Amino acid sequence: MPNYDIAPDVGAAVRDFRLPRTLGFGLVNAPVMFSVDFKDGEWGRGVLTAYGPISILPGARALQYAELAFEGLKAYRVGQPQPNLFRPIRNCLRLQRSAERLSMPTVPEVLFLLALEAVTSACSGHIPGHSGHSLYLRPFLYGTESGYLVKNSKEFRFMVIAHPVEAYSSGPMRVVIERTDIRAAVGGLGAIKAAANYAGSLRATSAAIARGYTVALWLDAREHKYIQELSGMNIFVVIEGELHTPELDGAILPGITRDSIICLARYLGFVVRERAISVEELLVGVLSGECSEIFACGTGAIITPIAVLADADGREYVPRTCDSVAKQLRESLLAIQERRATDHFGWTRLVDLDATRWDSQ
Amino acid sequence: MPNYDIAPDVGAAVRDFRLPRTLGFGLVNAPVMFSVDFKDGEWGRGVLTAYGPISILPGARALQYAELAFEGLKAYRVGQPQPNLFRPIRNCLRLQRSAERLSMPTVPEVLFLLALEAVTSACSGHIPGHSGHSLYLRPFLYGTESGYLVKNSKEFRFMVIAHPVEAYSSGPMRVVIERTDIRAAVGGLGAIKAAANYAGSLRATSAAIARGYTVALWLDAREHKYIQELSGMNIFVVIEGELHTPELDGAILPGITRDSIICLARYLGFVVRERAISVEELLVGVLSGECSEIFACGTGAIITPIAVLADADGREYVPRTCDSVAKQLRESLLAIQERRATDHFGWTRLVDLDATRWDSQ
Repeated sequence: MPNYDIAPDVGAAVRDFRLPRTLGFGLVNAPVMFSVDFKDGEWGRGVLTAYGPISILPGARALQYAELAFEGLKAYRVGQPQPNLFRPIRNCLRLQRSAERLSMPTVPEVLFLLALEAVTSACSGHIPGHSGHSLYLRPFLYGTESGYLVKNSKEFRFMVIAHPVEAYSSGPMRVVIERTDIRAAVGGLGAIKAAANYAGSLRATSAAIARGYTVALWLDAREHKYIQELSGMNIFVVIEGELHTPELDGAILPGITRDSIICLARYLGFVVRERAISVEELLVGVLSGECSEIFACGTGAIITPIAVLADADGREYVPRTCDSVAKQLRESLLAIQERRATDHFGWTRLVDLDATRWDSQ
Repeated sequence: MPNYDIAPDVGAAVRDFRLPRTLGFGLVNAPVMFSVDFKDGEWGRGVLTAYGPISILPGARALQYAELAFEGLKAYRVGQPQPNLFRPIRNCLRLQRSAERLSMPTVPEVLFLLALEAVTSACSGHIPGHSGHSLYLRPFLYGTESGYLVKNSKEFRFMVIAHPVEAYSSGPMRVVIERTDIRAAVGGLGAIKAAANYAGSLRATSAAIARGYTVALWLDAREHKYIQELSGMNIFVVIEGELHTPELDGAILPGITRDSIICLARYLGFVVRERAISVEELLVGVLSGECSEIFACGTGAIITPIAVLADADGREYVPRTCDSVAKQLRESLLAIQERRATDHFGWTRLVDLDATRWDSQ
């Protein structure tokens, strides 16, 4: 018997679920979700329920003070009956760091994995098996206590929802440099996965989309000089055959895909440098051809080429090549994620369906 | 008939409500709340319902990306049957600026006031009449659409909840200077009332409380040199009889109480200067006696003296006087807010009970 409760509506929800043809990214809700409450200083017993709206106090600190942190990772089931997760411990550790920065209680590794495996296991029959498709898992942690004193809640909830997905983005991106707004500053929340970071990013990204671009590229808050990331995606630049990426300066999110690319690229023989990269160096390098290729990475999109870099004044910079190194790395990484290639890094983790079967009660 | 719907449970909720002896600040929920949805590019018809938990999609951008902004203001009913609001148009304008920075739809002034007046009117019999007590109103705006693309929701909700309250804080505060974490940087969200600003503040404030202090004093993100504000409260320093307060540098919240104090103090004959104030100047000034008094202000607390300023190393700085200028200003301001003194500024706004009676259907 699994170490969590299963609501009576779970069986029918899973049985009645039909995977639509078009999945998008986050458009289709998996039939179940997992919740567990933190109260009186400890985590309670988790419960798997049918997916649906949740109830929250309107004055909860989650809503009033953005006492919110989240994660994102994928379960794959390509050419195998048993689903596998990609580097879930890394997500757990990052959620723990997020919780510490927001002074929320950390979710223990065993509970984090239990929640992921409970949802993945219940949905295992509905994980799309095409290469590049997956079950996107979204764990999140929030303060449920109502109150206006600027201090932490005493009560929290940890949840996992999930979505059968295609890749987050297909096709090369058109990226616009954001010269005015900032996403995060050193000393703030940029290095953790706080919902709050995204609030500041919405305007620039919505404006980029309205102008026909895909996403905004953030510069550092202090000097507006160094490139940082693209809200939810890190960035890599190919310079004379080497891979360069902004160093973790305390304001950039330490992406798990970023880390995987650094490891994998070195394994494949690339020189990889983490360093401060100024936007001027990048633009001059694209013009001269020294920066031959740019790409973004993240859990959703894995690795996506950047076709065009536009400055705030509308001037566009087009790298010489598109999706060459990016394609090589994406195919190598995806093959590991989908367990089609040997996982030299120990990154994949099979979900033991027997231990977590939702219908095992 | 009012220009909003009234749910059938409102009558009983208002009738059955009893004002407890101890109110605290946000501990007691008023019996009603107001909600209105934004959909297909326009605001719908509002509804007044009994207070209670709300339903939200777990993947809503409010929860995942902190697509959240709020306001806070008070309705008074001291020595008069008709409640009055304090500078509500200012709150409306600020919420509109917050919405613009987050690229959310703005709440029109007429809808903002309708919501405030609907709640205030329904609760008018339960607004505590003691001086210093009030009905604290919390308008907030959030994105309800579920989705993980980093862009805005297309659907939103605007709500007003309320709480009969005592003053937010009583007695002098003990403030600790935060030297590591930052609250907000120029280009970010510091100058608007985004929930996201508070997320970054929780750790320092919770740590301050654990060390026996009341709240953290934030320094600027760029140099950690200039004093900014105290999460939800602005700060004033009395220097040789003049009032000095940090200038609005784009990272500090333009507090409505801050603005009211600047206007009122000048009217009362004080010299008021808005300028960059370094933390070193402040500490040296307290030691020399030149900075004779420090106080904080905000809607909740109105004006609260600061008894002690502590540095991160534990060293404490005690201003020569406590609650002298602060007391004078607080009493003058509260007298206007409660309509016991002539309102030369046009700050108070009576709520027309006849136009908004909840039982007038």
